[in-house]
Amino acid sequence: MESDRYKRGWEKLMEIDGHAGKNVMESLKDIAPDLARYVIEFPFGDVYSRGVLTLKEREIATVAALAALGNARPQLMVHIHGALNVGCTRQEIVEIMIQMAVYAGFPAALNGVFAAKEVFTERDNMGQSN
Amino acid sequence: MESDRYKRGWEKLMEIDGHAGKNVMESLKDIAPDLARYVIEFPFGDVYSRGVLTLKEREIATVAALAALGNARPQLMVHIHGALNVGCTRQEIVEIMIQMAVYAGFPAALNGVFAAKEVFTERDNMGQSN
Amino acid sequence: MESDRYKRGWEKLMEIDGHAGKNVMESLKDIAPDLARYVIEFPFGDVYSRGVLTLKEREIATVAALAALGNARPQLMVHIHGALNVGCTRQEIVEIMIQMAVYAGFPAALNGVFAAKEVFTERDNMGQSN
Amino acid sequence: MESDRYKRGWEKLMEIDGHAGKNVMESLKDIAPDLARYVIEFPFGDVYSRGVLTLKEREIATVAALAALGNARPQLMVHIHGALNVGCTRQEIVEIMIQMAVYAGFPAALNGVFAAKEVFTERDNMGQSN
Amino acid sequence: MESDRYKRGWEKLMEIDGHAGKNVMESLKDIAPDLARYVIEFPFGDVYSRGVLTLKEREIATVAALAALGNARPQLMVHIHGALNVGCTRQEIVEIMIQMAVYAGFPAALNGVFAAKEVFTERDNMGQSN
Amino acid sequence: MESDRYKRGWEKLMEIDGHAGKNVMESLKDIAPDLARYVIEFPFGDVYSRGVLTLKEREIATVAALAALGNARPQLMVHIHGALNVGCTRQEIVEIMIQMAVYAGFPAALNGVFAAKEVFTERDNMGQSN
Repeated sequence: MESDRYKRGWEKLMEIDGHAGKNVMESLKDIAPDLARYVIEFPFGDVYSRGVLTLKEREIATVAALAALGNARPQLMVHIHGALNVGCTRQEIVEIMIQMAVYAGFPAALNGVFAAKEVFTERDNMGQSN
Repeated sequence: MESDRYKRGWEKLMEIDGHAGKNVMESLKDIAPDLARYVIEFPFGDVYSRGVLTLKEREIATVAALAALGNARPQLMVHIHGALNVGCTRQEIVEIMIQMAVYAGFPAALNGVFAAKEVFTERDNMGQSN
Repeated sequence: MESDRYKRGWEKLMEIDGHAGKNVMESLKDIAPDLARYVIEFPFGDVYSRGVLTLKEREIATVAALAALGNARPQLMVHIHGALNVGCTRQEIVEIMIQMAVYAGFPAALNGVFAAKEVFTERDNMGQSN
Repeated sequence: MESDRYKRGWEKLMEIDGHAGKNVMESLKDIAPDLARYVIEFPFGDVYSRGVLTLKEREIATVAALAALGNARPQLMVHIHGALNVGCTRQEIVEIMIQMAVYAGFPAALNGVFAAKEVFTERDNMGQSN
Repeated sequence: MESDRYKRGWEKLMEIDGHAGKNVMESLKDIAPDLARYVIEFPFGDVYSRGVLTLKEREIATVAALAALGNARPQLMVHIHGALNVGCTRQEIVEIMIQMAVYAGFPAALNGVFAAKEVFTERDNMGQSN
Repeated sequence: MESDRYKRGWEKLMEIDGHAGKNVMESLKDIAPDLARYVIEFPFGDVYSRGVLTLKEREIATVAALAALGNARPQLMVHIHGALNVGCTRQEIVEIMIQMAVYAGFPAALNGVFAAKEVFTERDNMGQSN
């Protein structure tokens, strides 16, 4: 049933993105509630729940892709949080950005590092240890 | 010394890309030998040799980014080979593409899967088991 | 139930993409059957079935976006077919590409026109009138 | 004559973008007056005046393309205004963004919706009914 | 008058792209004659005729941008020809691609070099000295 | 030796980017010192020091590419400064953006001009004559 996908997706969203994910859903509520539902059902209910790759590996792929594309900074920041929430270290996040210097150029890597720096500061301010 | 970076890079290139990497270097020899040298020294001599991320994690990041960008099919194919050479399974490669449907759209995912299919056929024809 | 989304999606896919859509699904069967299922369920079962925009308007948006991105030629061709199948004229397809010259540059427009030319020839060869 | 293209373009720009279009032209006056002239002559004097597609269809194509590219937020906002000015409803704008989730990924769709939200608020504040 | 822009544009197109430019115009004749006219009037009649930058500098900018975008190979090849026609050396073309490794990544640089290699071979076959 | 590349790169960075380059390096110090080192060694120590193209030609290529990509505004601004530092005039910078209207679309050109406007104001405020 649809509601299983939604329920499974919501739990996965909370596991990965926690607070940040909730905020994005809130901000969609009045303007595009169906898009909010799709975000929960398809990416989180269907895709993140598949296994095969670990959640850490999925977030490495996602952070790399968003840093390389360079046109979705809010989502890059949400997924740097997500990657740290599911087991990446801060050093590994920086390392993904260095890897992107090779495949998407130094500007992509630098902007990725600056996004990471902002996320790390947010987490320091929230008292999170990683 | 420069030659240490080159030597370390060449060994890393052989470890990851083997035959495919050698072919790319060959094809640059007459037209852009310095670019061939830079490819060995910087991506492979400097970046891939850093540790922090495993080679498998680096290739997950790279395959994801190249599939998301969608404008570098030859390099995507080289790095699908590379990912399989350093420990990814074929199923994991397909899974990276499914993850990219969420972040770069279904065309990126489909073209990534079709590139993977071509690589898998090449490897079957070469008698490789994964 | 899931199967409703799949059934609705399959019918919508046949309505829009017909033969071409079926071929794409076939080619995914052995390598990524779950991605094939997602394509039917999410884009076609969920999104294309929403109403609000007409199918013609959805295809105008899609052809414009794929021409602007310029990195997904097979999907651009499928959706030029799709646009013609749901009511666009050939002249309107060309006009979308001219519009893209303004927003994505002349190379995007030219490559869009050349893709359209190939689609028109395919349809002439299949005896289709538009 | 050149001046016909300019006159026709200026009227078309006012019809579609009104206030917002005028502001962009103003901001180009001192630094790149020729680019301001080209914007009026080519996109508006030549392309938007062609017919074949309705102005609403042209703006659907443009909003879709700019949301998919994801790297031109000011122009996306101007064209969401434009689309609403020539007959799109707010719901249709949101729907274009949902369509883009399929072809350019969820980050493109989300950032498109957030840009639309900002435009809708601007229009509410200006007392515009759609 | 319009016809001045067209005449000036056609001469500029012939000066820069020669044979290759003529072929592109030919291939647009039956499907999108107005787009062919715009290509001549706006890029070549208006922009390339402006001065300020030399034609060589304009082609350096164009080859760099098309190599960085990586999604318009036919136009990249036309403009590598164009750059060579207005005074760039082959070594300078390769050098632009190396510069792009820094700003758009190594895949962009490699694909740029391979496009250049193909152009150089075409020119060798046509007996051109540079 | 490594330190030769670093030394040569640092001098080249100071020649081209001066104050702005130093700030970027500073901001990387605590979070990604190795990336800072790579920026100095590879782009500046290896690439910018090659000759073949003049520094002005390299910056024309870089400003064009970054304006076309449209996803790296901080680096675009640094390189507009850089281009002016190595001999471009302000009028030439604007001209590169007009050239990009043709190859990457009017939004890329407009955003490039607005970035240039901001850089020119910064330089006016610093009392720089070009």
